Amino acid sequence: MSEKLYTACVIIIGNEILSGRTKDINLSYLAEELNKIGIRVMECRVIPDIAQVIVDTVNECRQKFTYIFTTGGIGPTHDDITTACIADAFGVKLIRHPEADAILRKHYGDQINDARLKMADIPEGATLIPNRVSAAPGFVLGNVYVLAGVPNIMRAMFDELRPALKGGAPMLSESVAVMMPEGQIAKGVSDIQNAYPEIEIGSYPFIKDGKLSTNLVLRGTNGNTLAKATQDMRAFLEKAGAAFIEAA
Amino acid sequence: MSEKLYTACVIIIGNEILSGRTKDINLSYLAEELNKIGIRVMECRVIPDIAQVIVDTVNECRQKFTYIFTTGGIGPTHDDITTACIADAFGVKLIRHPEADAILRKHYGDQINDARLKMADIPEGATLIPNRVSAAPGFVLGNVYVLAGVPNIMRAMFDELRPALKGGAPMLSESVAVMMPEGQIAKGVSDIQNAYPEIEIGSYPFIKDGKLSTNLVLRGTNGNTLAKATQDMRAFLEKAGAAFIEAA
Repeated sequence: MSEKLYTACVIIIGNEILSGRTKDINLSYLAEELNKIGIRVMECRVIPDIAQVIVDTVNECRQKFTYIFTTGGIGPTHDDITTACIADAFGVKLIRHPEADAILRKHYGDQINDARLKMADIPEGATLIPNRVSAAPGFVLGNVYVLAGVPNIMRAMFDELRPALKGGAPMLSESVAVMMPEGQIAKGVSDIQNAYPEIEIGSYPFIKDGKLSTNLVLRGTNGNTLAKATQDMRAFLEKAGAAFIEAA
Repeated sequence: MSEKLYTACVIIIGNEILSGRTKDINLSYLAEELNKIGIRVMECRVIPDIAQVIVDTVNECRQKFTYIFTTGGIGPTHDDITTACIADAFGVKLIRHPEADAILRKHYGDQINDARLKMADIPEGATLIPNRVSAAPGFVLGNVYVLAGVPNIMRAMFDELRPALKGGAPMLSESVAVMMPEGQIAKGVSDIQNAYPEIEIGSYPFIKDGKLSTNLVLRGTNGNTLAKATQDMRAFLEKAGAAFIEAA
């Protein structure tokens, strides 16, 4: 079981998420899509539009994880500082990228202006990520993938990347939900966890019809082992008298 | 303007958020509630149920921010390791807390068991946070507030804390949304930002009825300055021919 682990960190850049005004939906999307190709999101950071914080966070995280995905801050306005910060983090210059320049001029026609052309300034050495929704590209530099914050633009950019991302064995999962508080079944669940060290078992309480319920999620890369562990879990829960329900 | 800034970091602990299975809704709640009492969330980290990561993250963040709020991992099951990690982070022992023990025994009656009593093991020196929803308490140690992950339990715990949290001037905000792409108004918005350095202006693109639109959010602690900046923003947008709409 010494396969290489492909890890990722998602860095969500933007005061609007930290103020609570906007609810992020990019993390769960990226986590699920990356998981399918065997890349595991191990951390997410939500940080403000403050240059030093962005630079430091990117530099810390790009050493620690296989892939870094950033979202947000690559638009045309004064508060879009991600691109310049990535250049700083890597110690390279921002250059007017000829291909990005051409894409933007073509897209905007006579509505082109300096603010929009700012989106053609890309760190030297970066590769563009096409944007079929609104033209202005994202980019890749080293292991850092710089994406838009608007969810459907982020997803369009991710579609372009997906085929080339290298991952390991996809993490498979099964879940079993019961209307029974987790404290009542904790011992048995723990015994199953101990019997299957290569399966990761999470126990997640939720409230259904006013009653404490539990969703047990089993995850692993080996389908047979996962199926066996899930079978044992179901058998244990049935014996415990738990009512099986839909997960929250 | 040298008032003390009260900052917070939210640490969301749990593989279920990083797998994408569960969408976090605690960050936006905490951000908005803290903001009302003048505490500003400056960072959020989502981390897995891995002891060393929890210990390191808590120890790094508690030095950097006024308040740390953690969510998740304080239940009765094998994967609930937050409490033990907080004790480790502070270099103190876990002790069976007599008050927590009494609360749990009273709540569970003859359904009490070892897994549930694990929730009475609290780091030495910590103060309990009552839980009116499901009894098992959270706790405070130093500047670290350890809350449940289930949103309505987390909120019930936060209700207990709110009156005693000390903050600065609440951040006030105004927003103006227009059906016009941000690139078209970026220059004027930037001019207003430059005219009001103490106001933080964020420009957030969104798509409404298939059209690129922009939500401009102005934030500051001085209501008069905020009102003036917002008035200038509206005047500029009107002059630019933008149609005012509801924000996304």
